[in-house]
Amino acid sequence: MKFNIQHQDTQCKARNGLLKTDHGEIETPIFMPVGTAGSVKAVHQRELTYDIRAQIILGNTYHLYLRPGLEILEKAGGLHKFNGWTGPILTDSGGYQVFSLAENRKITEEGVVFKSHIDGSRHHFTPEGVMDIQRVIGADIVMAFDECTPYPCEWSYAKESLELTHRWLKRCIQQFDSTESRYGYNQTLFPIVQGSTYRDLRRISAEFVAEQGREGNAIGGLSVGEPAEMMYEITDHVTDILPVDKPRYLMGVGTPANVLEGIALGIDMFDCVMPTRNARNGMLFTSEGIINIRNEKWKDDFSPVDAGFHSHVSNFYSKAYLRHLTISKEILAAQIASIHNLSFYLWLVGQAREKIRSGGFLEWKNQMVETVSRRL
Amino acid sequence: MKFNIQHQDTQCKARNGLLKTDHGEIETPIFMPVGTAGSVKAVHQRELTYDIRAQIILGNTYHLYLRPGLEILEKAGGLHKFNGWTGPILTDSGGYQVFSLAENRKITEEGVVFKSHIDGSRHHFTPEGVMDIQRVIGADIVMAFDECTPYPCEWSYAKESLELTHRWLKRCIQQFDSTESRYGYNQTLFPIVQGSTYRDLRRISAEFVAEQGREGNAIGGLSVGEPAEMMYEITDHVTDILPVDKPRYLMGVGTPANVLEGIALGIDMFDCVMPTRNARNGMLFTSEGIINIRNEKWKDDFSPVDAGFHSHVSNFYSKAYLRHLTISKEILAAQIASIHNLSFYLWLVGQAREKIRSGGFLEWKNQMVETVSRRL
Ligand SMILES: [Zn+2]
Ligand SMILES: [Zn+2]
Repeated sequence: MKFNIQHQDTQCKARNGLLKTDHGEIETPIFMPVGTAGSVKAVHQRELTYDIRAQIILGNTYHLYLRPGLEILEKAGGLHKFNGWTGPILTDSGGYQVFSLAENRKITEEGVVFKSHIDGSRHHFTPEGVMDIQRVIGADIVMAFDECTPYPCEWSYAKESLELTHRWLKRCIQQFDSTESRYGYNQTLFPIVQGSTYRDLRRISAEFVAEQGREGNAIGGLSVGEPAEMMYEITDHVTDILPVDKPRYLMGVGTPANVLEGIALGIDMFDCVMPTRNARNGMLFTSEGIINIRNEKWKDDFSPVDAGFHSHVSNFYSKAYLRHLTISKEILAAQIASIHNLSFYLWLVGQAREKIRSGGFLEWKNQMVETVSRRL
Repeated sequence: MKFNIQHQDTQCKARNGLLKTDHGEIETPIFMPVGTAGSVKAVHQRELTYDIRAQIILGNTYHLYLRPGLEILEKAGGLHKFNGWTGPILTDSGGYQVFSLAENRKITEEGVVFKSHIDGSRHHFTPEGVMDIQRVIGADIVMAFDECTPYPCEWSYAKESLELTHRWLKRCIQQFDSTESRYGYNQTLFPIVQGSTYRDLRRISAEFVAEQGREGNAIGGLSVGEPAEMMYEITDHVTDILPVDKPRYLMGVGTPANVLEGIALGIDMFDCVMPTRNARNGMLFTSEGIINIRNEKWKDDFSPVDAGFHSHVSNFYSKAYLRHLTISKEILAAQIASIHNLSFYLWLVGQAREKIRSGGFLEWKNQMVETVSRRL
């Protein structure tokens, strides 16, 4: 993997870079649609490419490990071959899902024992095992196995958890570096900074992570319920410590405004289920602001879902039609809203890249944060 | 509307025709995807055009009348403008849904009083009202308001029902012919032959319907639970009576085999929810036979969903991936299976047209009925 910063904003930490993987190039800052179980919900693979213009998607290790399982994924030749998405893929480590979805989970020094939320079957995740699983999935970017602390979290728990995450990171690196890619292309491992909302812990963790000298670094444990200002403050603090010449990934973030603020703080990569999950509930992020399409006010508004940028579905379908489909519980509602929201996120980060290149990022960002946050 | 028969098979009643509407031409025999509430479930409008190659779609008067309702449809400028499908649309009369979905329905000479299955609100459908509703929806082909008898049905009930349907037909014609299209293009009204499974009643009804001299005729009340052989026998009987030079529409039919047999009996138009409803349950109609994609045997079958004809999704996604999506309850499963099944139906009727033109229809049909009916 290669990362080049092509433009550094002069008024803030925003930068425009190019990340090269064996499955293609990624322009940063980038938003990565989440394909939990190997499918970005309600979206066809070619829609990801041609409508949404996704450059990289996520897969969830926990979900893929349980279903379809490693045997099928390995027989298929990895996730790219299995789902037909030929661009880069990043997989999380499964830690977050184990803690939020699985039952009877128990953390030890060795790893985590848990029961599947699907059938109650018993499983064991260790740092080494999770590296091996991500080798089988065949993600271009593999995430370290960490404990993502909840919010709020006592300082003492956050510190102990952080130390465990760091010991696990060493084991992840050891395992990853002593194994090979199974399908002939390069994979890279990103470590994760933890430390909850504590500046001292975040510093320790960011320095520890930076010392590992990996090709990219991630910030975890944010956007878990803390106020946005706190998330920005911690992000700012951590990006001051993480190496400038490596891509920085802010995990699980966030709203359009969160993404724009993250970019200003030097973040290059984002992912979040919000654009797709909220789409399925009828919430649209548009170039004019946030729309609850179920609202009666849209019932006879025959203007496009969002005329503010080009995307087939956003310009083709009307608000009134989408409202009708949503109220009528038609599957097409989820399809239109998901493609729209993701197209909007990808358009937004594309605009951010352009503004960083042309110079007016900060002013544009401040204006845009206001626009995309208002409720229509 | 204009209908020209371009090829008449010499070994059976199959024919290949061209039906011209103000929204485009339809090659017959044709299968019409069902877009109940103004959306062919799980399918984007451009997929209907470019992947499925639909030439005409259905809308359901009952559903559209309740949601989004006539006020919205009229403000939109009709269903075409509302949902963005620019090809021909046929709407049923709502009778079938009133009898199968609505609550507390009561039939009188005047019409039907019923309660909405959505909110229990009270409504009244009359032959005149249903014509007016279909004028507002703006369908290219409007169906008469009839009573669709269930199977089995006593001869005496079938006879009385038939007589009511005929009186209603006269009222439909009177109303339709004394009103105008609202949106500047032509609409046409098809009457419906009823008479349950009784040859004498079907003869009376077919003769009555033929006498009305409309631009096309439909056969209703079949595929409601009777044995397939009985459906074919009645269809054969009725197509012997209906005029040769008008398109014939066999309502609510059916399986791929039913469609092929119907074509051989002189039917030009078909519709059925089966390809989309069964798709959502994991049942695929393929060029090799019927697949239950949930079956474990497909879990590591990485061959295309159906390589037997060209359609983007059928060739792009594998059986193993589709099985995984189905088992995991991913929305994309319904999308893939719906596009596939509809593409298959449209491919099948396209093949039938080609065989009618080139001469080998009957032999091909007999072989194909066997192929498409077998379970893989
Ligand atoms: Zn999120
Ligand atoms: Zn049917």
